[in-house]
Amino acid sequence: MTETQGEKKTALVISAHAADFVWRCGGAIALHAELGYEVTVACLSFGERGESARLWKEGKRLAEVKAIRRAEAEAAAEVLGVHALRCLDLGDYPLDLGAEAEAQMVDIIRAVQPAFMMSHSQYDPYNTDHMRTTEFVLTCRMIAQAWGHNPGEKVLGAPQLYLFEPHQTEQMGWKPDIFLDITSVWNKKRAAMEHMNGQVHLWDYYTRVAQQRANHFKRNSGGMAGGRDCKFAEGFQSVFPRTVDEL
Amino acid sequence: MTETQGEKKTALVISAHAADFVWRCGGAIALHAELGYEVTVACLSFGERGESARLWKEGKRLAEVKAIRRAEAEAAAEVLGVHALRCLDLGDYPLDLGAEAEAQMVDIIRAVQPAFMMSHSQYDPYNTDHMRTTEFVLTCRMIAQAWGHNPGEKVLGAPQLYLFEPHQTEQMGWKPDIFLDITSVWNKKRAAMEHMNGQVHLWDYYTRVAQQRANHFKRNSGGMAGGRDCKFAEGFQSVFPRTVDEL
Amino acid sequence: MTETQGEKKTALVISAHAADFVWRCGGAIALHAELGYEVTVACLSFGERGESARLWKEGKRLAEVKAIRRAEAEAAAEVLGVHALRCLDLGDYPLDLGAEAEAQMVDIIRAVQPAFMMSHSQYDPYNTDHMRTTEFVLTCRMIAQAWGHNPGEKVLGAPQLYLFEPHQTEQMGWKPDIFLDITSVWNKKRAAMEHMNGQVHLWDYYTRVAQQRANHFKRNSGGMAGGRDCKFAEGFQSVFPRTVDEL
Amino acid sequence: MTETQGEKKTALVISAHAADFVWRCGGAIALHAELGYEVTVACLSFGERGESARLWKEGKRLAEVKAIRRAEAEAAAEVLGVHALRCLDLGDYPLDLGAEAEAQMVDIIRAVQPAFMMSHSQYDPYNTDHMRTTEFVLTCRMIAQAWGHNPGEKVLGAPQLYLFEPHQTEQMGWKPDIFLDITSVWNKKRAAMEHMNGQVHLWDYYTRVAQQRANHFKRNSGGMAGGRDCKFAEGFQSVFPRTVDEL
Amino acid sequence: MTETQGEKKTALVISAHAADFVWRCGGAIALHAELGYEVTVACLSFGERGESARLWKEGKRLAEVKAIRRAEAEAAAEVLGVHALRCLDLGDYPLDLGAEAEAQMVDIIRAVQPAFMMSHSQYDPYNTDHMRTTEFVLTCRMIAQAWGHNPGEKVLGAPQLYLFEPHQTEQMGWKPDIFLDITSVWNKKRAAMEHMNGQVHLWDYYTRVAQQRANHFKRNSGGMAGGRDCKFAEGFQSVFPRTVDEL
Amino acid sequence: MTETQGEKKTALVISAHAADFVWRCGGAIALHAELGYEVTVACLSFGERGESARLWKEGKRLAEVKAIRRAEAEAAAEVLGVHALRCLDLGDYPLDLGAEAEAQMVDIIRAVQPAFMMSHSQYDPYNTDHMRTTEFVLTCRMIAQAWGHNPGEKVLGAPQLYLFEPHQTEQMGWKPDIFLDITSVWNKKRAAMEHMNGQVHLWDYYTRVAQQRANHFKRNSGGMAGGRDCKFAEGFQSVFPRTVDEL
Repeated sequence: MTETQGEKKTALVISAHAADFVWRCGGAIALHAELGYEVTVACLSFGERGESARLWKEGKRLAEVKAIRRAEAEAAAEVLGVHALRCLDLGDYPLDLGAEAEAQMVDIIRAVQPAFMMSHSQYDPYNTDHMRTTEFVLTCRMIAQAWGHNPGEKVLGAPQLYLFEPHQTEQMGWKPDIFLDITSVWNKKRAAMEHMNGQVHLWDYYTRVAQQRANHFKRNSGGMAGGRDCKFAEGFQSVFPRTVDEL
Repeated sequence: MTETQGEKKTALVISAHAADFVWRCGGAIALHAELGYEVTVACLSFGERGESARLWKEGKRLAEVKAIRRAEAEAAAEVLGVHALRCLDLGDYPLDLGAEAEAQMVDIIRAVQPAFMMSHSQYDPYNTDHMRTTEFVLTCRMIAQAWGHNPGEKVLGAPQLYLFEPHQTEQMGWKPDIFLDITSVWNKKRAAMEHMNGQVHLWDYYTRVAQQRANHFKRNSGGMAGGRDCKFAEGFQSVFPRTVDEL
Repeated sequence: MTETQGEKKTALVISAHAADFVWRCGGAIALHAELGYEVTVACLSFGERGESARLWKEGKRLAEVKAIRRAEAEAAAEVLGVHALRCLDLGDYPLDLGAEAEAQMVDIIRAVQPAFMMSHSQYDPYNTDHMRTTEFVLTCRMIAQAWGHNPGEKVLGAPQLYLFEPHQTEQMGWKPDIFLDITSVWNKKRAAMEHMNGQVHLWDYYTRVAQQRANHFKRNSGGMAGGRDCKFAEGFQSVFPRTVDEL
Repeated sequence: MTETQGEKKTALVISAHAADFVWRCGGAIALHAELGYEVTVACLSFGERGESARLWKEGKRLAEVKAIRRAEAEAAAEVLGVHALRCLDLGDYPLDLGAEAEAQMVDIIRAVQPAFMMSHSQYDPYNTDHMRTTEFVLTCRMIAQAWGHNPGEKVLGAPQLYLFEPHQTEQMGWKPDIFLDITSVWNKKRAAMEHMNGQVHLWDYYTRVAQQRANHFKRNSGGMAGGRDCKFAEGFQSVFPRTVDEL
Repeated sequence: MTETQGEKKTALVISAHAADFVWRCGGAIALHAELGYEVTVACLSFGERGESARLWKEGKRLAEVKAIRRAEAEAAAEVLGVHALRCLDLGDYPLDLGAEAEAQMVDIIRAVQPAFMMSHSQYDPYNTDHMRTTEFVLTCRMIAQAWGHNPGEKVLGAPQLYLFEPHQTEQMGWKPDIFLDITSVWNKKRAAMEHMNGQVHLWDYYTRVAQQRANHFKRNSGGMAGGRDCKFAEGFQSVFPRTVDEL
Repeated sequence: MTETQGEKKTALVISAHAADFVWRCGGAIALHAELGYEVTVACLSFGERGESARLWKEGKRLAEVKAIRRAEAEAAAEVLGVHALRCLDLGDYPLDLGAEAEAQMVDIIRAVQPAFMMSHSQYDPYNTDHMRTTEFVLTCRMIAQAWGHNPGEKVLGAPQLYLFEPHQTEQMGWKPDIFLDITSVWNKKRAAMEHMNGQVHLWDYYTRVAQQRANHFKRNSGGMAGGRDCKFAEGFQSVFPRTVDEL
């Protein structure tokens, strides 16, 4: 990579709802944490209204639901080695992504100065919170790069934005261009997932996702002739071109 | 890169007409040659009918045109540090990409065992030779991977196929996802281009292409905050996903 | 269809302007009404500013224009057998699709519990009201599915969203994947259209649309060998995949 | 469905290589066989060169490889309840899809008179045999519809062409618009897969595919509110629009 | 237009089957003939097998079918003011577009030296003859531009290729970027269509197409404020960019 | 062109930031000014925060930055022959494109009654200000066409919207369908660019863009056989179809 990085390596994940960062890029977080990255996760909401069906069925109230979801997210973040978990509490279904949220997110981006960022797919007819988050992230990235925004602060460079794997990939027009081997940190991802008590059915679902992506990893690293073995992987789509000194 | 590579690093460029490899990836060739790669270039034709207007206007005949174009290609390859230039002489406008050409190309691919391959864009309404070459390359790559094709030979792994820059990129639906800094070998690319005597107007055209791509390199490596300086670059589109151990 | 439906079959059409539901899915409404569906139509606006040129040329004022357009919509709805016509009066050119409109629409969706929904194409450079309506509908569908939105209410399942036919289909990127035979209710659709007094030139235009779609119906049901005869049809594009027990 | 069907219900699956029909639509075959369809499977090749790596590594020769693969396909077809397995033996990597193959396939199509057809995705950079098969199928479907081709024979109507699930769906631009519940015949599909002795690693891979598609089935049939339970499913993409009398 | 044109204005229409040029661009032909263009029409086949159902049902034989279709095409061409009708008799369903056909077509292109060319849409799952014709035309255009093809002949410039309107436009991915007013020559187009005795049901179908396109003409020339009246129009999609001196 | 135009020819350019109109369509402005068009330029912002890095690095304050950028824009507009420069001062990074901005812009559009409009590409992940401007322009165009918006005012017809060239065209999905020869006014464009003192590195960048587009102009006007010479050109993408009386 030709990107200029300071000595401290950092990354920033922006998750629309509290659990997204676990299912979709928990392996990447754990792996990069082990590689020495400080990984910050920003949860725009707790997914309190839209992704906590079990709690509502049990008769919980909003404050309780949020507290429980926060605790789950914190536990998962802990397991994954997240450096900082930032909960913006913007409300969900729909998210409130107005000027205030924008200012908060730009502050976080500038504070983190990420080598790369991660967020959702650019299209999602099932969940417009997801696709609006990505557009919001692009806007905040742009603002963070502006020399005239809070002059004096360190402006942002040009970090890659990786789009992590959505549910029902083909319906979202999401196409991975990179597979990351997460075998060495798989236990952490599984453990983090198991903190998501309201979505038990997804534990195995996203385990299988990781196994399928491992198959793709092997195919694309050599297939039947020299493909590298891999047990668990995650896929990502890059928004921006890379800059390199060797192909 | 996670790809398993032997000690000898190799690459294979498939060029529909004799000069394509110079304009479109001469920098990548020269750079990787300097990095120790053995780069093989396969020219499917000399571009004798369709890309030698000046020679025909001068009244040259077919054999002469081909000889001149071959000599130019050889001179350019020499300058770029090409390891082997393979001229398949399949005729151009249109190329004859039948079973025989396929067999020849598969033999070359297997002999080279490239870490990566390069060819044209997947769509080109101006020049169907270009787009058919890419489909032909995908077919030959597939055959070279088949254990039952000439059993006993070493089968191919899963090398990346990079699509180099076409003329009028937007009309071809070509979108670069990688920029390669070729500043250190620019003089070689320019010198190679200057061997193409029949297309003098393209020397400056492709010099400007390299300057524009250098601007894009800088933008994507940090822009106004830490973007790395670059004088000349080339862009490529990847067909297959990458497999990595760190983002 | 594998969708779980209560005994009462229902459908919900969301129309940006008062007349859209007539031109674009009047046949589907009338047909499903005859099949026993309770079809609710939500008109976000009367199209008072942007689709009532004749009335403004005659010197009518806003209140009059709205009253006339409302009366026309009611008359058309009556003819088509609409169960309930809900006029949200959000203003048009542009529609005001803020949080309040969202809340209203979610209430309607939950009250109706539609087996399927209908709205506009996802892109429309001529009329951004149309494309914003569809994104608005997707957001409201998402909210209506959230167990934490107005807990205690019956949450929405996963109804299909059909995109009805826009004007100049190719410019909108709209592609029908289903043709519905509306021959048996054609007289009702024509009668409903004839209530739209300000857009007389569209009566024959949308009659011809129905005739062309009938030709497509015949082609796709068997063509020159067994294609079923059909005089009038409507086309729709599905947003979500179907779930079935037999192909 | 509005398609005119004779009393005998039939379907036709066109599989580029011998095992494709098992992995990609074995459930649909078994299910429709149980529903009374006569399902014919046409294998264009045995996948002898390109998809039999294990056999070649063991030193088998071409005739042996083909015989083994044929036996496996027959055993799998038996388990699935295939009415007729037609092996065209066109060679693979690449397939020879010339005029003779075309004539054979048209004869099969006309003999079967399928209510629906199935084949591969329309794009596949990993395997051009797959994408050429689909174009070949479209051409043969067109010829089978021509009254002037072998006049006197019964011409084909307009059967749907379903594209079954490719490996690495997102790279192929494949998007399912229909999910089929195959829970009731899952044991047959698994048993058929287990006849494919050379590709043991794919047994679990395609079991997981079926589990993931079952999740998508549930989501799209109602999700968290009334989604129908489903253990195993298959996804398909339709090429042509449907014609219906009710949405 | 900045294109250099000789004094004699010419155009070339390439029609896969005998009747395509009538339905799809009969108006453009008649209009440009009146404007002084010499319009050549090349029919690659008579559509004898695939588009002559009525004749086969009547028990006609191949030679008769071809003779009748040729006569109809000649009569239609006469009415439209076609300068030259070239019937290549390549067979249909499928067309034989091999090297010989290529040579013939290149000769025609060079002889005509068209200011613009016309052919089919680039995708057509119903009729692969159509989409292959367009790729064939692009190849022939490329060859005709090659100085080394039949040196001494006048090489082709860079004429626009317009894609005329297919049946079921949305299924073909065809998007018109230009509407041509054919009101003044409508009677000729209708008369030409009425020479196509085997496809009577298409007379009214394509009359309605022309009426719908006239509506689009009016909308795009000013709509409700200054849109120019138009009774009949045809739509076309351009393959190449235009070059102009004023927008 | 069939568009009805009054005697006074007018055009309207909407530029997100102060300098966009110079780099992206300065040639078109100067050329049409010479052709007698009154060209109005609306700058939504001065690009004060996001595109004035040099000034902020020098320690300038917001008011100074805006004043300097305004002065540069005015000087450039003067050189180009702009009829009226309208600075809306909406703030940048991000632009505030609310109801008030909408009303202002509609007033400008109606006052100008442009024969054509120009703005940004429809997608830009680097700069969401750009893509939101284009959607904003489409909305304002729609409102300006509404007879019920400020009744009594002259409503807008259906002017073309040209999308001018973005930076890194391929990343934006921008595809030019028209090249405009700006050789005769090149000196003005260069002079206008040289008023942009904070972005000196872009002077040569956009000079090279114009040279590359000139090459494309030549290719598409005839290529190696009759292509018209051209030194500098600009490219544009049209949003709407054209209406013509001759192809």
